[in-house]
Amino acid sequence: MFFELYWQYFVTGLILYGVTRMIYIYMDRKQKNQLGEQKKNEDFKTPDQLAEIDGEVSEDSENDFTPALPHDLKHIPLCYTKLPTDEMIRRSEEYYKLMNQRRTVRTFSSEPVPIEVIKNIIKTAGTAPSGAHTEPWTYVVIKCMEMKKKIRNIIEEEEEINYKKRMGKVWTTDLRPLRTNWVKEYLTEAPYLILVFKQMYSYKENSEKKLHYYNEQSVSLAVGILLSAIHYAGLVSLTSTPLNCGPALRSLLGRPSSEKLTLLLPVGYPAPDCLIPDLQRKPLEEIMVEI
Amino acid sequence: MFFELYWQYFVTGLILYGVTRMIYIYMDRKQKNQLGEQKKNEDFKTPDQLAEIDGEVSEDSENDFTPALPHDLKHIPLCYTKLPTDEMIRRSEEYYKLMNQRRTVRTFSSEPVPIEVIKNIIKTAGTAPSGAHTEPWTYVVIKCMEMKKKIRNIIEEEEEINYKKRMGKVWTTDLRPLRTNWVKEYLTEAPYLILVFKQMYSYKENSEKKLHYYNEQSVSLAVGILLSAIHYAGLVSLTSTPLNCGPALRSLLGRPSSEKLTLLLPVGYPAPDCLIPDLQRKPLEEIMVEI
Repeated sequence: MFFELYWQYFVTGLILYGVTRMIYIYMDRKQKNQLGEQKKNEDFKTPDQLAEIDGEVSEDSENDFTPALPHDLKHIPLCYTKLPTDEMIRRSEEYYKLMNQRRTVRTFSSEPVPIEVIKNIIKTAGTAPSGAHTEPWTYVVIKCMEMKKKIRNIIEEEEEINYKKRMGKVWTTDLRPLRTNWVKEYLTEAPYLILVFKQMYSYKENSEKKLHYYNEQSVSLAVGILLSAIHYAGLVSLTSTPLNCGPALRSLLGRPSSEKLTLLLPVGYPAPDCLIPDLQRKPLEEIMVEI
Repeated sequence: MFFELYWQYFVTGLILYGVTRMIYIYMDRKQKNQLGEQKKNEDFKTPDQLAEIDGEVSEDSENDFTPALPHDLKHIPLCYTKLPTDEMIRRSEEYYKLMNQRRTVRTFSSEPVPIEVIKNIIKTAGTAPSGAHTEPWTYVVIKCMEMKKKIRNIIEEEEEINYKKRMGKVWTTDLRPLRTNWVKEYLTEAPYLILVFKQMYSYKENSEKKLHYYNEQSVSLAVGILLSAIHYAGLVSLTSTPLNCGPALRSLLGRPSSEKLTLLLPVGYPAPDCLIPDLQRKPLEEIMVEI
């Protein structure tokens, strides 16, 4: 009797285990489809998965059959003037020397800058290429002091928690030589703050959803061009990533849920006593391989 | 007797269910830490999670306590020459006009370009800022025709499957007006191919692992500066993302597993008969919001 009972317990347990496991596997698959599990399966990406990786768009979009660009898009000759080889070498060197003077700055002067310059800089960033020419970017330029104060409050509150709790010892140790902390004076000192939002999707004229492929990469690349324009105009900036502040700042600025904050750049003149960490850049041999 | 047995089955099942569930929850958490599940939990990111999002680094790094930069990093005054306001406005406009002439090109001339220009361009990209100054990039420059052919074979084979099977109708419909397909002549025509790898982590001198925060964003931003340098030197390029070819190309080029291919850019002169799609860029009002 004892053995018989034991055997019955075992079978019941096994059945219950099997059922639980099946339910769990099913739930798990469903969840993984919704999350970014495909990051590991580098070899089989579909456009929806890519849009998800970039921006967590997870809706079925098999019904969107209107191309985002006009069907009859004309193809025209490229306007191009070839430079003599010497001139090309000279210019490539000149531009390197110019860009090599760029440094990230953390203390700003509050001296005003004409908005015209900021507009030209953002127009320049707008010339960046983007996946399927979706141009998935919104630049929110803050000049208003009251708004800057609100932004600073949100960021300093979050950053204090980031530094004290979330970032962990490795990260804060790595950052210590750069002397950064959660007090961000530049958020109210700099004449402008540029908040860069990536658009994960938008809507076509016929109100179909338009997926923005590679939106994260496109926007970061555009910010590279933005930075070069800021430097070319003789201004300075700081490429900051307000960790965990995205949703609060998005709602403060009234941006739609299709957008996500990626970077925040104060722009202006450096403070007269501005100090920068004495960093060196890797030499060419360390970053380039020739084959 | 029957009821008594039933009750025992029930309790045994409940206990087994509980144990199974606890094991599963534990496994699930462990797995989620390894995957990019935190994408959804925008509000609570730790540095390891961030490094994972960027590069799937999943090891416990609580033992890494040496900062990546020197402890006693000096802070020095910024070298800065202020431009007169008029000059600043003029330069910001000049740079916009220059950059606005940049177009993505898909047909290249095979005319050679001095390697010196390519080196200056990559040095310029190397001036980009990066998270905690990790400089997480490797630029592999291919001049060798045999290697270009191997790269082309890998990419065309994958791209044919991408276009025919993986990308789906939405994406291929979106791309049709741009007249792209899986045949990539530029891979053997352009004098150089630049393959951009992001480094997800590296090793410190004491062989501790060094996490590269925001490596994806940093590398894309650097490519924005690379593109501006290519254009400034009077050359043309194409920002291509060889979908699903990363692992094959990484192993072909012998790059370590800490690196991941992000972009491939052919660089050179445009073909004499080069056509480009007649695209317009969004006006400033559509990309900028002033507050």
